[in-house]
Amino acid sequence: MPSKTVEELQPMFHPKSVAVIGASNKPGKIGNSVLKNMAESGYSGIIYPINPKADEILGHKAFKSITDVPGPIDLAVVCIPSKFCVPVVEDCGKKGIKTMVIITAGFKEIGGAGIEREHQIVSIAKKYNMRILGPNCLGLITSGNFSFSSLSPKKGHIGMLSQSGAMMTGLLDWAVENDIGFSSFISLGNKCDADEVDYIEYLAQDENTKVIAAYIESVQDGEKFFKVVSEATKKKPVILLKSGRSAAGAKAASSHTGALAGSDIAFDLAFKKAGVIRAETISDLFNYCLTFIIAPIPKGNKFAIITNAGGPGIITTDAMEASNLGFAQFTEDTVNKLQAVLPAESNFYNPVDIIGDAPPERYEAAIDILFQCPDSEVAGGIVLLTPQSQTEPLRVAKLVSALHQKYPNKTLVASFIGGVSVNEAAKVLTKGGVPTYAFPEEAVKVLKGLEYYGRIQKSPIITQKKVPHVDVNTTRVREIFDIVRKDNRAVLLSYETSEIFDIYGIKNPKSRLAQTARDAAELAEEIGFPVVMKIVSPQIIHKWDCGGVVLNIDTQQKAKDAFISIMSNAKAKGPSNADLRGVEVQQMITTKDKKKVNELIFGINRDPQWGPMIMVGSGGIYANYVKDVKFDLAFHYDRDDALKQLKQTNISKILEGVRGEPRSDIEGVVSILVKLSQLVNDFKDIVELDINPCLVFDAESGYSAVDIKITISH
Amino acid sequence: MPSKTVEELQPMFHPKSVAVIGASNKPGKIGNSVLKNMAESGYSGIIYPINPKADEILGHKAFKSITDVPGPIDLAVVCIPSKFCVPVVEDCGKKGIKTMVIITAGFKEIGGAGIEREHQIVSIAKKYNMRILGPNCLGLITSGNFSFSSLSPKKGHIGMLSQSGAMMTGLLDWAVENDIGFSSFISLGNKCDADEVDYIEYLAQDENTKVIAAYIESVQDGEKFFKVVSEATKKKPVILLKSGRSAAGAKAASSHTGALAGSDIAFDLAFKKAGVIRAETISDLFNYCLTFIIAPIPKGNKFAIITNAGGPGIITTDAMEASNLGFAQFTEDTVNKLQAVLPAESNFYNPVDIIGDAPPERYEAAIDILFQCPDSEVAGGIVLLTPQSQTEPLRVAKLVSALHQKYPNKTLVASFIGGVSVNEAAKVLTKGGVPTYAFPEEAVKVLKGLEYYGRIQKSPIITQKKVPHVDVNTTRVREIFDIVRKDNRAVLLSYETSEIFDIYGIKNPKSRLAQTARDAAELAEEIGFPVVMKIVSPQIIHKWDCGGVVLNIDTQQKAKDAFISIMSNAKAKGPSNADLRGVEVQQMITTKDKKKVNELIFGINRDPQWGPMIMVGSGGIYANYVKDVKFDLAFHYDRDDALKQLKQTNISKILEGVRGEPRSDIEGVVSILVKLSQLVNDFKDIVELDINPCLVFDAESGYSAVDIKITISH
Repeated sequence: MPSKTVEELQPMFHPKSVAVIGASNKPGKIGNSVLKNMAESGYSGIIYPINPKADEILGHKAFKSITDVPGPIDLAVVCIPSKFCVPVVEDCGKKGIKTMVIITAGFKEIGGAGIEREHQIVSIAKKYNMRILGPNCLGLITSGNFSFSSLSPKKGHIGMLSQSGAMMTGLLDWAVENDIGFSSFISLGNKCDADEVDYIEYLAQDENTKVIAAYIESVQDGEKFFKVVSEATKKKPVILLKSGRSAAGAKAASSHTGALAGSDIAFDLAFKKAGVIRAETISDLFNYCLTFIIAPIPKGNKFAIITNAGGPGIITTDAMEASNLGFAQFTEDTVNKLQAVLPAESNFYNPVDIIGDAPPERYEAAIDILFQCPDSEVAGGIVLLTPQSQTEPLRVAKLVSALHQKYPNKTLVASFIGGVSVNEAAKVLTKGGVPTYAFPEEAVKVLKGLEYYGRIQKSPIITQKKVPHVDVNTTRVREIFDIVRKDNRAVLLSYETSEIFDIYGIKNPKSRLAQTARDAAELAEEIGFPVVMKIVSPQIIHKWDCGGVVLNIDTQQKAKDAFISIMSNAKAKGPSNADLRGVEVQQMITTKDKKKVNELIFGINRDPQWGPMIMVGSGGIYANYVKDVKFDLAFHYDRDDALKQLKQTNISKILEGVRGEPRSDIEGVVSILVKLSQLVNDFKDIVELDINPCLVFDAESGYSAVDIKITISH
Repeated sequence: MPSKTVEELQPMFHPKSVAVIGASNKPGKIGNSVLKNMAESGYSGIIYPINPKADEILGHKAFKSITDVPGPIDLAVVCIPSKFCVPVVEDCGKKGIKTMVIITAGFKEIGGAGIEREHQIVSIAKKYNMRILGPNCLGLITSGNFSFSSLSPKKGHIGMLSQSGAMMTGLLDWAVENDIGFSSFISLGNKCDADEVDYIEYLAQDENTKVIAAYIESVQDGEKFFKVVSEATKKKPVILLKSGRSAAGAKAASSHTGALAGSDIAFDLAFKKAGVIRAETISDLFNYCLTFIIAPIPKGNKFAIITNAGGPGIITTDAMEASNLGFAQFTEDTVNKLQAVLPAESNFYNPVDIIGDAPPERYEAAIDILFQCPDSEVAGGIVLLTPQSQTEPLRVAKLVSALHQKYPNKTLVASFIGGVSVNEAAKVLTKGGVPTYAFPEEAVKVLKGLEYYGRIQKSPIITQKKVPHVDVNTTRVREIFDIVRKDNRAVLLSYETSEIFDIYGIKNPKSRLAQTARDAAELAEEIGFPVVMKIVSPQIIHKWDCGGVVLNIDTQQKAKDAFISIMSNAKAKGPSNADLRGVEVQQMITTKDKKKVNELIFGINRDPQWGPMIMVGSGGIYANYVKDVKFDLAFHYDRDDALKQLKQTNISKILEGVRGEPRSDIEGVVSILVKLSQLVNDFKDIVELDINPCLVFDAESGYSAVDIKITISH
């Protein structure tokens, strides 16, 4: 069953009838280009040009208004000036049209009246249940060319989106030159209604689309993206080029589209979670697309190199290692088989060097042996060729293509280094399902993309991942937040954070608020000696400076004395307006009895598009300079994610135990991450949270979140 | 005055007469290909085919032997089987031939008899003062094609070397396809005599060569490389593609060429020091070459983007930031001028967006304003174009080329995104001195290369950099090393390292060897209380375990007692074969009185090709896991290098003073690096040296190299 979105977009992609509102006989006008493009692209449905001043346009009977059209209309393409658009959208709604492509500019992107105009068309569209592409776009190329692009690419299997119309013109131009075909090409424009995610959803179920590619500058709705894209990526590869990576680039992006650009690290994490392949450059985007259309996804992650020259073998090995692509290690049996068919001077280990005088049959023999190996030993390979005096590139290409037919599950890519002598061979290979490049580095890159997608297919769908949720007293947390807000604060006081952490089961020094000397004595007894006592006042930041801290309190009497001295010190030396709430009695954490102590940092902040982002790494006063921290999104985040995230830090090795030290409480660290993730998902109020340091001891002694800061929204 | 090397290689590059030893009438034979290539490449000198069985070959009178040739011969090209080569080289020497290209394989690369044969030809060549290219190579293409490559590239300005013959065939093939010209193309082969550095020296003074490029797998002689290449890079760009970057790649490289591959990090450092531009991929290598031939080197490091579309502007900004390329910030005056000529919707800040409907004149106006800026504000720019409906790519290209003529010192590159609509424009631009690419990322890469070379040209020649050398008592250090060697040790004892550090002025806890209790008391008094005392015995590693350490000794009597107890403990609990040398009396470093204490690590090891490599970073017991260390080569290494190296570490920020802490003794850290550099250059015996930790205090309190280990060669 197609989803609601797919069903609603269906008429836009396969319209039986199209009205062009603003169709024109004047060459150079957008309404003229659209109509011409429709005809030239072989669109076979009914065409209704709409123009109040013409009876016929480019051979089609024209209508004064959309309401004059006798039959039903599936799609309206709008190219009249923006000031006329609102009533036209209303007319389309009344006429029962379900999809519109609004090419016209002059909406959100110009600000002011444009924003208002865009709001109006969105609410009209909602009323009539219409789906809109655009406004401010180049149009759509699908079963016909419903755009004003002067170029129509050939039909093919890439479904492509572009957030930039200008970029789309460039990409189309390049694609036409390079004979690349598309199932659809969609110019997103302002995304006033349907956005990139809706079109990805559509293309994911579209049979003509084998790979989905997009140039985007922002994502509208992170949650929707996860829901749709993480399922789409299981069906077919989704390759995104997201610009605005750099701080300067993001600034340029946001001035360009008016979209609130999320931080790039969050995009990287989100794309990984959703199974998206991120292209680094425009040429990577196309290389991946073309590869995914022809090459099989590898069944394993170890690859062999077969070469007739040493140098390229080394370069390819370098590139494989740099991209972390698995290097096949042959079994003795495989080596023996290679030795039986190759000359003695060959290299029988990876990279397999069949030496400069290799006839085509030697390539064939070597690859045949390697491809008989199980997928776990050799999942595929990279064939390298340099055109030496005895080399026959074309025959090698034909034999290698045939081997690809014989072993369709083995992933083969090739680099035939050269030009004049190898071009024809390269074409034969690529046509035969073996993507071939002039230089090995590109071959390695696409092979890496294929291998990565193989892992994506096998990984669970993030939104379907069940994350255990522990029942906690959220009512009490809510109460604390209410108190903080009533108090006109955004930052929680230490005993408040302590109580919340207690509720969520994150160990921290016990801490309670005493309002009398007797309170202090009793709380100290309850917490357990020794304790630290500190003044509590939102106005007093530097507690030490006004005599507001006493350490090492080990009797009830000392606790009483401390309360009195702290309160009087604060009165005497604190700011005159200080509101003295009392004295915090806090457990003193001693590290002398611990076998091992390390300082960690934990943090949470919220990304506007992707929600809470969680951080862990080396803590302590120098944390900002040591820069050993790693991030993840706290979205369907579980123990495995936490462990994986921790393992990326340098300090994780130290926690595992080095130099004869015991293992640290890694379980504890992981549990903190999981619990923090639940906490910030339970309470969207939390805008920031920091623990630094969290003292982590040996596995028996646990940990203590010593210093916690929580900031909530108003 | 040409150097000796250049003078000696001259006849190889511009021979008036060439003998082809092994010339043949049989097509397919190497000796036939070489002769044919010479003729077809238009070589105009005298050709002497040498073949005992022919009277005439390809129209040239043939000679039985080299000694039968009547006239003088500048170059002999050898393509007879390897077993006949040795007497032929002797004959060539006798005949007075000064240069030879030995194409024949079957030398060092096959091991055994091949190595011996190669030694023989090298010693004959030395005897007669002959220079040899090869053996085991493809030959040489220069004033003629003296190779057996089936392709002759066109004449041009790239001087190219390749350590791999097969790679050379691939590169030539690609170059012919892409119409790229060369001044010389040299296949290095086994480099038995002249090596990559000799040819770089030759090409550096060759007027036809504007840029030197090479594919190499190893460097023969690091010192010679520095001497020659760091001067060559001031004259023209030297671009090297060095394979074997990865551990696996290096293994493949060394099995391929038999060369001892230096570690890649040392190559990176050496290339930087010598001013080499390192290409990451084969296509980068060519892109750089083509750019350097046509584009001017920028006079500054700030660049503007001019675009008719927002998306590509963002992508380009991202790529510039990723490659650390300076982003121009316009003055108010410049912005005002742009506002005066561009439509209101434009972006007047970098990237300058002249919007989608931009006619060619708008490009011209914007660039003209930007190029009137001083070089410090705008040194050049990247012109971006997407072919939108009103865009005229060809006219833009012509106007931009004209601007390049008008402002020849401003560096311009371009990306005209697309294919069919922009190809002709791209050709016009590239021909006009503006390298143009289909995608912006490549344009940014070559601009970065140009900017980097601009800085290389301005930097001093490394080998001419005067590094101050402090006079120290090297005789005493030599004596200590002799003692260590006599003692059959490689690792110095603690009081030995201490003395050496004292000689070089690197502060460390005072440490002396006591052989009697009275000695101990006197030395303790001399060093200053408190002291630590430790057993000295090469056989006792774990001194604590056998009661061999006493801390906090603060009187002469305690020192005497400690000596006696340590010696008797060591006797009783140490290994039975332990040779007890006495007790070390060492100053105790207390940190309680210091305002700041940080642990640093210093290290030295020797790279086989590049000499001593020096390391600095975050020290302490976790140094190996924290991984905050940076490297440099201790070659003409001075204060500035040391400071630059230190600044790359994360800990350097902490040393500068953060969170209100005082500045650390950075001068001290820098002085350690400089002194270590002198030490390891003074004594090639030192194979490894470590200081971990070196305690670094606040600037007034200095530092102390607490734990030092020096290993020397036997």
